[in-house]
Amino acid sequence: MAPFCAAVDWGTTNFRLWLLDAKGEVLAERSSSEGMCACQPDRFESVLEMHLAALGAPAGLPVIVAGMAGARGGWREAPYRDAPASLEGLYRDAVKIDGIARDVRILPGVCQRESGREDVMRGEETQLAGAWAESRTSGLFCLPGTHSKWARVEEGRLLGFTTFMTGELFSIISQHSILHDMVVSGGGDSTSPAFRDAVSEMLDGAGLTGKLFSIRAASLLGGDAAPDGKARLSGLLIGAEIAAARKELKSGAVTLIASGMHARAYETALSIAGIGCRTLDGQDLVRRGLYSAAVALWSEGTRE
Amino acid sequence: MAPFCAAVDWGTTNFRLWLLDAKGEVLAERSSSEGMCACQPDRFESVLEMHLAALGAPAGLPVIVAGMAGARGGWREAPYRDAPASLEGLYRDAVKIDGIARDVRILPGVCQRESGREDVMRGEETQLAGAWAESRTSGLFCLPGTHSKWARVEEGRLLGFTTFMTGELFSIISQHSILHDMVVSGGGDSTSPAFRDAVSEMLDGAGLTGKLFSIRAASLLGGDAAPDGKARLSGLLIGAEIAAARKELKSGAVTLIASGMHARAYETALSIAGIGCRTLDGQDLVRRGLYSAAVALWSEGTRE
Repeated sequence: MAPFCAAVDWGTTNFRLWLLDAKGEVLAERSSSEGMCACQPDRFESVLEMHLAALGAPAGLPVIVAGMAGARGGWREAPYRDAPASLEGLYRDAVKIDGIARDVRILPGVCQRESGREDVMRGEETQLAGAWAESRTSGLFCLPGTHSKWARVEEGRLLGFTTFMTGELFSIISQHSILHDMVVSGGGDSTSPAFRDAVSEMLDGAGLTGKLFSIRAASLLGGDAAPDGKARLSGLLIGAEIAAARKELKSGAVTLIASGMHARAYETALSIAGIGCRTLDGQDLVRRGLYSAAVALWSEGTRE
Repeated sequence: MAPFCAAVDWGTTNFRLWLLDAKGEVLAERSSSEGMCACQPDRFESVLEMHLAALGAPAGLPVIVAGMAGARGGWREAPYRDAPASLEGLYRDAVKIDGIARDVRILPGVCQRESGREDVMRGEETQLAGAWAESRTSGLFCLPGTHSKWARVEEGRLLGFTTFMTGELFSIISQHSILHDMVVSGGGDSTSPAFRDAVSEMLDGAGLTGKLFSIRAASLLGGDAAPDGKARLSGLLIGAEIAAARKELKSGAVTLIASGMHARAYETALSIAGIGCRTLDGQDLVRRGLYSAAVALWSEGTRE
């Protein structure tokens, strides 16, 4: 079957491309570490064409892109849409790359300008569009990561969202703080009691910055055994995120867009909080969101 | 007047020594950057003797030490006393350095072993002892710093305490996170609206990890002007500390042990929280606490 479009998730550190047929089924795919950070501004086109050529994509095949390639300093800036924003309508603000032969469009990110609640996303909105296209679910969505996003979607509109620096804080505290030794040598994952206890403490209203040092103190007082410092740090940070984000939960369950270890950890923590959740795979959803935008852009138009 | 003792505040990165007369008045003083981190275990004695000699201290003058010199890996470990602990009684657990001619004693730190609230201090207990000796004040004490301490003292007993990693988080977030550019280039101090707004947001119950990214987003959305990123980060962290710590405030005011910029920032933040505070100078208090311990150890004894 002939491809209908190419869909690209072009993030900070990763590049992923799918050739999709007219029904959105995957015909072929490629991925690499040529994220935005690895691409000089003048290299985006050649990276894209190289991957398209490797999959035998025709010269006239249009390409829809989401992610950091549309940031300032990326390939071409696709300015943020203000929330509230229709997830199905994001394609209207896609930016067409000019000066090249192929029809390539980059989807916009979404922003929020309220003072003290300023926020931005770029890429997650396409996952949310995919989730809406697939399941027509309203409610609160959680997208864990370096910068976790919690987003409220009602009737296909992204009303607002909050970014939690959970993953980045885990990384810099592990690497650069006095907790380094306890986290690096400390075992444990989201199945360990240390993780569960830490989540519970944060859900009970503890302040994060007053809990972190307990990891160090427990190690000093406990002698040799580093008591699951990694699991405890992870539990404190994820617990802090859920404790704050659940204030936005009006009723019902959270839709978790995640996979692997992230999904397990957040499912465990949400269950400790008594919050039901349904988990969807993030990679599938970004492709689904890209496909929906491509259909809106090109399924009625004429293409070579 | 002849010196009665030498008092040493020997921290991680700083060394400070005073010659005190029998009334605790300062006869002479020295300070240097020869903190614990700069001293190999076998160098503590020579560093101390060099500074004593520079001040012309007699060979038989006893020396009382507080701080990280008593940590594992310091000069000689002075094991933690468990809280609750009598501040006037800490001298009883001072550790005498053996194998040297001079009478040198290191005061213990204080620890708390309750699971999930494990904590340690080393140096601050001597400031608290100084505050008790000077003013007989009970209540909640705040000692800002790299690792801020909030301690409850009743009738001269240190009942319990919590460490907040406020200063260290400010440092690693400034240096190593995606907020780096906004904090380094962003001006503002505790008099700026950005600081005050950030404190207020945290006192209103916001979650710290969901507020940090607003510094980045405001910069992306606001164009050139980095909106006081430094003041905002400082306000969020200090606000988070006070929001958590004030749960321990039963009534009345907080005693703030601080000086300079720290004192101004915490005084501003406490006033936004509607909490009265009285500020005492930390360096004076550690010397006062050391002197009290020296009196208890040596004023009745015989010395050359």
